[in-house]
Order: sequence, then structure tokens, then C-alpha cells
Amino acid sequence: MGPAHIGILGLGTVGCGTVNVLTRNADEISRRAGRQISIAAACARNLTRRRDCDTSELNLTTDAVSVVENPDIDVIVELIGGESPAKELVMAAIRNRKHVVTANKALIAIHGNEIFDCAQQHGVVVAFEAAVAGGISIIKAIREGLAGNRIESLAGIINGTGNYILSSMRDHGDSFDQALRQAQNLGYAEEDPTFDIEGIDAAHKLTILAAIAFGIPLQFDKVYTEGIRNISTEDIRFAEELGYRIKHLGIAKRTTTGVELRVHPTLIPERRLIANVEGVMNAVLVNGDAVGPTLHYGAGAGAEPTASSVVADIVDVVRALTTDPNNRVPHLAFQANAISDIPVVSPGDFETAYFLSMEALDRPGVLADVTRIFGELDISIEAILQREPVEKNTAQVIILTQETKEQRMMQALVQLEELPSIMDAVKRIRVEHLSYSAT
Amino acid sequence: MGPAHIGILGLGTVGCGTVNVLTRNADEISRRAGRQISIAAACARNLTRRRDCDTSELNLTTDAVSVVENPDIDVIVELIGGESPAKELVMAAIRNRKHVVTANKALIAIHGNEIFDCAQQHGVVVAFEAAVAGGISIIKAIREGLAGNRIESLAGIINGTGNYILSSMRDHGDSFDQALRQAQNLGYAEEDPTFDIEGIDAAHKLTILAAIAFGIPLQFDKVYTEGIRNISTEDIRFAEELGYRIKHLGIAKRTTTGVELRVHPTLIPERRLIANVEGVMNAVLVNGDAVGPTLHYGAGAGAEPTASSVVADIVDVVRALTTDPNNRVPHLAFQANAISDIPVVSPGDFETAYFLSMEALDRPGVLADVTRIFGELDISIEAILQREPVEKNTAQVIILTQETKEQRMMQALVQLEELPSIMDAVKRIRVEHLSYSAT
Repeated sequence: MGPAHIGILGLGTVGCGTVNVLTRNADEISRRAGRQISIAAACARNLTRRRDCDTSELNLTTDAVSVVENPDIDVIVELIGGESPAKELVMAAIRNRKHVVTANKALIAIHGNEIFDCAQQHGVVVAFEAAVAGGISIIKAIREGLAGNRIESLAGIINGTGNYILSSMRDHGDSFDQALRQAQNLGYAEEDPTFDIEGIDAAHKLTILAAIAFGIPLQFDKVYTEGIRNISTEDIRFAEELGYRIKHLGIAKRTTTGVELRVHPTLIPERRLIANVEGVMNAVLVNGDAVGPTLHYGAGAGAEPTASSVVADIVDVVRALTTDPNNRVPHLAFQANAISDIPVVSPGDFETAYFLSMEALDRPGVLADVTRIFGELDISIEAILQREPVEKNTAQVIILTQETKEQRMMQALVQLEELPSIMDAVKRIRVEHLSYSAT
Repeated sequence: MGPAHIGILGLGTVGCGTVNVLTRNADEISRRAGRQISIAAACARNLTRRRDCDTSELNLTTDAVSVVENPDIDVIVELIGGESPAKELVMAAIRNRKHVVTANKALIAIHGNEIFDCAQQHGVVVAFEAAVAGGISIIKAIREGLAGNRIESLAGIINGTGNYILSSMRDHGDSFDQALRQAQNLGYAEEDPTFDIEGIDAAHKLTILAAIAFGIPLQFDKVYTEGIRNISTEDIRFAEELGYRIKHLGIAKRTTTGVELRVHPTLIPERRLIANVEGVMNAVLVNGDAVGPTLHYGAGAGAEPTASSVVADIVDVVRALTTDPNNRVPHLAFQANAISDIPVVSPGDFETAYFLSMEALDRPGVLADVTRIFGELDISIEAILQREPVEKNTAQVIILTQETKEQRMMQALVQLEELPSIMDAVKRIRVEHLSYSAT
């Protein structure tokens, strides 16, 4: 077969990584794909900027529309990122009956339902492995590798920046701000780090993972999202005393009433493999009814790890060029007419265990007051730690509870904060035990 | 589309697991596949035996040939295991232009080249995800998910029995024989455990992984294989003192002269995620030039985890029924005409670090003699431990070396064993640091 022709939109970090991987591994890739992958055109905003890839052999243009309209191109590779103009270009490509490969999580999480609908009408594939967890082929693993399972839950470290910050707070005792600055200096965090540290990036990815795991629509607006800005080195240290690590997890879980979709800092037992995923690495734990727990680990970002997934998608799409569309793997794992509308559980109904941290007056009876509140609300306590600070006549009280409904915990917090012996607000961090045993 | 019809050969552990998963998750599976999967016939040797699945709705037979010749059947699912009659039945199915799904590692490792050749001639797919690492979709991950990479190396815990034995020796201080007996009592080890503990099962799986990673033929006879029978609780304890765990690894690695294919007990740093894979769980570390290190973890055996991979393959194959054969994923990841004949490195040329354990007379000058031998052979020493036993006037000397060629280490061992102060043979276990950083 002759070469397949692709057009690349965007020559930033991932775009250049993709050019480099396609060039360096051209032989390995064509030995796998059965044909060469040829870059017919590449589009960038500024053609004079210095780039991390050799562009001398590329047919460069600043006109993205000319690429998506180029009749010689079979596959458009969208690596611009963000919602606009990426969305308009992807939709135009689809209408021109070109297949699309994208690394754009915001685009898929927010506009995926519309994009896949249009792709299906036009008989083309939109592939997005690189949109979640960089080089980990987690989309393929869930969508195809676990196709025999009813997926019960998944939990992932799916934002490398946040994991880098939490790891270096634990390893070096850095404050959140110090760790963030260091992440920025190393290029792991953006100048405006909001998307990463507030969990928005993770929520985009969780939206996608939940859709393909459960066969539900993409519904980014229903993901409960909490960032890591409030995590202190003390929280990390107390968690460690209790045998836990704090990780920023994206969690999707079936319950009796629907599916929980949530991103928040989470204590997890230090013995779990995923608790030991450090730095910018990502990992996703998927629990299927037949397979039991599986863990998928790798680099969650970076030029070449992300390019690894982009190129894998290109090879898949090139193979699908001549395939009857009805026999392709559905975009969201389940056939478009078989997506089900399982309700998304509201945060008040989340059931988790809790780590609570509060400053209390150091005097007799305080623990009695505190534990009475939990007893009356039927919340079981797993452990209590009390630590005196060096200066003030208060103590730091740490409580680990068993599982309870979030709304009940909120009641407890209101009552706790009304106690005259409890200073300030009570900090709460959710706890997940992630203890699935394989069948 | 109407249902796809499959015929199952073998209703043992995995066969029943497959029936159970296909039945229980029929709805989820057909929502993914776009059509129902219907079991048209199932074959077992003994129809009166009690089984772990409901066979009342199955069309049962003892005549396997009638199944592979049944014109209504699209896909044969071979779950008999072993070489014969599995091979004859699979070949007959292929000649009848039926696709095949198999969990049979021995069959693929030993006869795969012939089987895939025949399958290609007849335009059918032979899928074998379940043959390696049970429920982990490692074949798909390497063959498709990492298709953009030049795979540099892989290292896997791919035999659950061996890992269970080594884990319980470490956790409970059990001897090898005690741990083996316990594994047998729990059903994790066969009555004749040779295949598992001598590394033959792992070598079958490594043969398959190496072929799809590097684009080389299946060559089981070239895998260097060493079992775990000689590992003692002392070795495990000394390794731990040095910061290592002992795991039975299958390793495939590119070197400047070819590819190393080896299965042997291996010390790995305890901080690596794969060092913390315990019990019967499996994990495979794959290192690609673009993606860096990735880890794939899950249940390596058992009825339903293995069935999870069998069913995933069934769904894949059903999707491929109408696909142009030239556009399918090649059996061994690389196109059949692009398999390359990279030489397999002979054991003398393996390069690894070593853990050596020897009993030495407890008198001055012994360490000087020992270290002189290493010095003369240009083998660098990383660490030395000396431990006195309670009774005899000897000491246990443990040496950790840096990387060296195996033939040079063999010379050192000969010279060491000639020293009058060294009692008995020197035990050597290879060490791998598995320290790949993502690009």
C-alpha cells in the first residue's frame, strides 16, 4: 500500500514530539502499520519560531483551513489544544471526511458528544488516546482490553503537575507554594497553574474515562472537582503517621444509585501500588468485575510520551481507513445507540471515609465533645491522633472516620465548628481504601 | 447485525470462566460489540463432570472436530491448553476459515510461527491476549498502544505461582518447599509444579512478548531459563538488607549485538513499583524509546481474569470478521513480511549485575583474596556484607557487583570456588536496576 498522508495542526511540544517520533521510528512504524505515514502538511501560527523538531523537510503553513481542506490528506492530527479554534478545525475536518487524531482533553470532554455524533454521520474516526494520561494507552485498555467486563470503578493520578507538587511536599517537606514554584521552574506547571492544581485538567480526563468505562455520555459539568491548594505539609505528615499518602485522584465509581464522578485530594493506604506513583508519572487503577484490579502506569505528559499515544492512534486510524464503519471500535467504547443515562450521584450522596484535622483547645473533655457528635450521627471513628504544637495551648486533633455519606459528614462538621473548643474550620480530606481483590 | 457464533473447546477453569463472563455481562458486551455473542457449541471431554458454570443452556458435545467443522460457527475459542490436540484443532479451524481465540501460551510460543502463517494464508485472525499475563491486556498494549515506539526492553512478573512462592517466603519466612506446598493447597500451583517453578511457563510468555515487542520470530528454544528452586529465605533476607527484592522475571532486552531473552530470579531495587507486586499478581514493565517506562499490572491467572482477556479477543475478532485482512493488526505486531532476524544473545554475553552468596572461613585475608579476583577481572564491587552464623567458624559473604558480562562472572566464580577459604559453591543471582526515566 502507498503511504497514508497526515496533516498536523500545531507544532508546540506535542506537535514536535510527534514529528520527531514519526521521523525517528519511521521504519518500526511502517513495519507495524504495513505502510508509511507521511506528513503532507504541518500548520503552526508562527513559522519563524525556533522549534524542538526539524521542520526543514515539512510542508509548513500558517493556514490551518488549507490543511483540513487538503484533498490529499487522510488524517488530521489536532495538537493545538484548547476549545477554539481546535473545535472548528476538527469539525471542518470531519465534514471533509477526514479522520482525526487529537490530544485535546478539553475538546473531547466538553464537545466530544457533538464531535463523535458528527464523526459517525460522516463515517470517520476521531481518536483521542493522547487526551488522557499521556503515554499510557488507557483508552485502548478500557475500551478494548477490558471489553468483557462490567467496569465497577476507576481511580487515577491523571495530572502530573499535581502529583509532582504533592510528591515533593512529602519528599522534601516543601510548602505547597514552594513545590508549585519548583514545578513551574522545571516546566511541569504553567505560569497560570489553575487548570492543573484546581483539578480542571483531571476533571476533563475523568469525564472521558468515565464515559468509556460505563457507557455514559461525556458530562464534564457534572464532575465534582476540588483542587490541592489547601493541602499542607502537616496534612501529608499526619496522613503518613496513619499509614496513608495524599494523592490528587480522579474517581469514577458505580453505586446503587448511579455513578460518582469526582476529583479531589484523597488519602490512600501507602501499601497500594498507586500510592507509590511519584513525580509527574500517572497511573490509573481500573476495577472490572471479571478481571479484578488492574493498574496502568506511565508518563502522563511530555513531548514524546504524548506523541507515543498520538502515533499509536495514527496507526490505528490508518488501519481503519478501509474498514466498514460499523465494525470499528465505537468512540466511547459502547455503540452510540447503546449509551445509557445512568444518573450522576450528587456530592451529598458520595460515600467515603474521611481524614479530619482541627485545632482544639488543649483541655479535658474536648475529645468527649468531638466523639459525641460522631456517635450521634452514627459515624464510626477509625483512629484519633492528638499532637501538641510547640507554642499555643491548643492541640491538633486528627480523626480518621469510616465510610459515611458526605451530607452526614457536613452535618458533623457544622456541629464540630460550633464547639467553643474547636478553633477555626475543620479541614476534611476524603479517604479511599482502593482495596479490590481479584476474583 | 445478527449474533456472532462462537464454539468453545474446553470447559475447564478458563472455559467455565468464559461462559460465566459471556453470560453475566452479555448486555455490556453486546453494547460494546454492536452484536450479541452466542455460544453455538461447547466441547468437553467428559459431559457428566461437575463444572463451575451453568451448562444447561449450552449445546454440549465431546466431539471437538464437529465444532471446528460446524459451518455456523465464526470463531473457535480454544481453551484446552497444551500442544496436542489443541494444535491440530486450531489448524483445522483455520483451514475451515474460522477465526481463533486462544489462551494457550505453549501452543503460541512453540507453534505460533506455523499457526500465524497458516492463518494469514486463510485470511483469518488468531488472537491470544489471554496467553500472557491473564487479565492484563499486555499484548494489545505493546502491539497497538505502543505502536509508535522502538521497544527497548521489557521485564515481567509473568508467572503468578512463582511470585506467590517468593512473596510468601519473604512475608512469612517460609522455606521454598513450605511456600510451594501452600501454593499447591491454595490451588495456585499444580501437583507437578515444574512448568511454573522452573520458568518454562514464563519462558513461553516471554517468547510471545519478545516477538511482538521487537518484531522477531517466536523462538522459545532460544530463551535462557532458570527456575526459583534454589532461592533460600536467607537470599531473600540478604537482598532485603541491601534494599532489593527477589522476583522471578522474564526479561527481553535489546543490546548492541542482538536481543537478550532470559527468565531467571532477579534482584530488583525495592523502590520500583514492580518490586512491590505481590502474591499471584502479574506485572509487565515495558520501556519504549518515546513513552519511557510503562507498567501494566493485574491478575495473571484465574478463571475470570483470563476470561476477561478471552472475551476481549472475541469482541476484537468479531469486529474484524468483515475487515479487509490487510488492514488488521498483524499477529506479531509487525507485518509478516517485516519480521526481522535480530540475533539472540548467548548467555555468556548477558550483561547484568550480580548478587553472590558464599560461605567463607572466618579468618583474616579471605576478603582480600576474594576482592583480588574481582579486581583482576575488572568487575566492580558495589557492596559487601559479612554475616557470622551462630555455630560454625565460617561467615556468609554477600557481594553485590556492578554490571559485567556473564562469561567474566563465570571465570570469577571458578576462581572463587578454587580458593581454599571458600566452602561449597558460590550462589549467584542476577540483579537488574530497571531504572528507566521517561523522556
